[in-house]
Order: sequence, then structure tokens, then C-alpha cells
Amino acid sequence: MNFNLEEAISILSRTPQTLASLLSGLPEGWLRCNEGEGTWNADEVVGHLIEGEQSNWIPRLAFILREGESKPFPAFDRFAHLSAAERTTERKLEEFAELRARSIERLRALVGTDEVSLERTGTHPAFGTVKARELVSAWVVHDMTHLAQIVRVMALRYRTDVGPWAEYLGIFNR
Amino acid sequence: MNFNLEEAISILSRTPQTLASLLSGLPEGWLRCNEGEGTWNADEVVGHLIEGEQSNWIPRLAFILREGESKPFPAFDRFAHLSAAERTTERKLEEFAELRARSIERLRALVGTDEVSLERTGTHPAFGTVKARELVSAWVVHDMTHLAQIVRVMALRYRTDVGPWAEYLGIFNR
Repeated sequence: MNFNLEEAISILSRTPQTLASLLSGLPEGWLRCNEGEGTWNADEVVGHLIEGEQSNWIPRLAFILREGESKPFPAFDRFAHLSAAERTTERKLEEFAELRARSIERLRALVGTDEVSLERTGTHPAFGTVKARELVSAWVVHDMTHLAQIVRVMALRYRTDVGPWAEYLGIFNR
Repeated sequence: MNFNLEEAISILSRTPQTLASLLSGLPEGWLRCNEGEGTWNADEVVGHLIEGEQSNWIPRLAFILREGESKPFPAFDRFAHLSAAERTTERKLEEFAELRARSIERLRALVGTDEVSLERTGTHPAFGTVKARELVSAWVVHDMTHLAQIVRVMALRYRTDVGPWAEYLGIFNR
């Protein structure tokens, strides 16, 4: 096990600034390109991360700590952001940063100081028994998954432009 | 073709700040983890990006514009950073930011205002004829490849910690 709460928070707390550094002020061509029909562009991924703050991570952690394994926590709609109100990428980045800061406060408050609560278990609707600690670990990796996705989607825009270099650029071949 | 010089620069100019937002001040556990024997950790990837600024992208662009296809440009040592002088990740991030800012100035100066120079060709030691424009495109995607690599390497640290969520986290399965 590599998990450590403060190390997990060190990643969770950096994600909004990382996304803003990468995306804020970028030309629309980068923000709106995707990997084809039914795939998300960078702007939509930020929308999905916002949804996660609102409906997934902290609500589920609170649910585990409150209900234990007695009932499965509600499923998370991974496509909810596609029907959310339109706003600029800039506004979404700000919104994500505000929500994330609040989530981290809630995380600290819910877990408390001894971290023993992270060993508590709940019932995932698809996986069955899960630990609170696994949920928080998954939150960290979920950030990384979507950061990697954004970068991959944007790279694909230059798939043809790089000419013979495509062979050396691992991001096209994973 | 999607390439556009200003859009390419919009990515190249953001990479140092993106890396600093992601990595600056992170616990050593995140900076030093890798994917196993012979693979790079986040700190080493930053070292590799520094090498690229010093020996690869701008020197090769200048070489193409100066020599055309008359002689192949020197091969780039992709492992040079592993024997470079030790310094902190923090210092490397600063160094990369300084070098990148200078590279972008050089890029603008070399290309000039009409961008016709980007259609000039040179001889890559392995690929043969390449365009200056392809080199600059590859530079952009190279940033993205290594940003995705850093994120993937760090995510792997929690491979076991996420428990059953591993199945949903695409970064483990690419």
C-alpha cells in the first residue's frame, strides 16, 4: 500500500492549478478537438471533473462513513456534464477550483485526525465492498486519468502534422 | 493539416507552468516513483525536457534552415539527462522554464513572419526528409507525450490502492 492522506491531498489540491496552467487562454482549436464521435474534448473533461466534485467523491465518502455497507451508494452519472448549463472553459476552470478546495476541506473534516475512518467499508453498486481509502485513492487516480486524457486528445490533433516523428511519440501508440 | 505556429506556441509556452503546477512542492514519493527498472520518474522526465531544449528542438530547426537536406542533423541523445549534474526538481523546473522561454524567442526569430521557412526540409538521421513544420509539431506533441507519461507514472503508484476501481481507471489499461 502506498496510500497516505497528505500525499493524496498533495495531488488533489494541485489539479485545478495544473488544468488552468494547461488550458486557460488556449485557442478554441485545442479546447474543442476530440478523438471522434462520442469522445470528450478538454472542455468537456473539465465539466466531468466538476460533476465528480458535486456528485461523486465527497458525497460517496460521506455515504460510506454514514451508512457503512448497509446500502449501496447511488450510481454516479458519468455523462451528466454533457447536459449541464453552457459556460466558458475559463468559468469551468474557476468553478472546478472552488469546488475542489471545498472538497478537500470536507475530506479533512470527514476523515478526522486518526485516519482510522479510511478503513471503513461501504457497498459500491457495481463492485460490492469497498474501503473509504480505496475511494480516496481512486479520486487521485481519476484526476490523473483525465489529465492524461486531455493531453492525449490534444496531441491527436497533430497526428498527421508530426510526419515521421509519429513513430517516436508514444502518446499516439498507447 | 492542423498546424498553426501561434497555436503550437500556445502549447509550448504553457508546458513549464503546467509542470510546475503539477510537480512543484510534491512529496518525494510522487517525484521518485517510476514504472520499474529502466523507466523514468517525474524528476527524470523534466531532466529529459531540459536536454531537449538544449540539444534537440531549436538546434535542429536551426540546422534545417541552415543546411537544408545537404547533411543529416546530429542524433539526439535521449538519455543524456541521466548523467547530467544532480539538482533538485524545483531547480530543474525553473531551468526548464528559462530554457523554454528562450527557445520560443529563438523559434519566432528563426521562422520569421511569413512562416514559409517552415516548409523547408532537412534530413533526419533515421527518417530521411522531414519538414521544419513537422519538427515543430513533434516538439508540441513531445511535451504532451511526456506530460502524459509523468501523470501515468504517478498514477501507477496507486495501482493497488484503488482496489476494484482499477477497472474503471483508463490510465492503468492503456
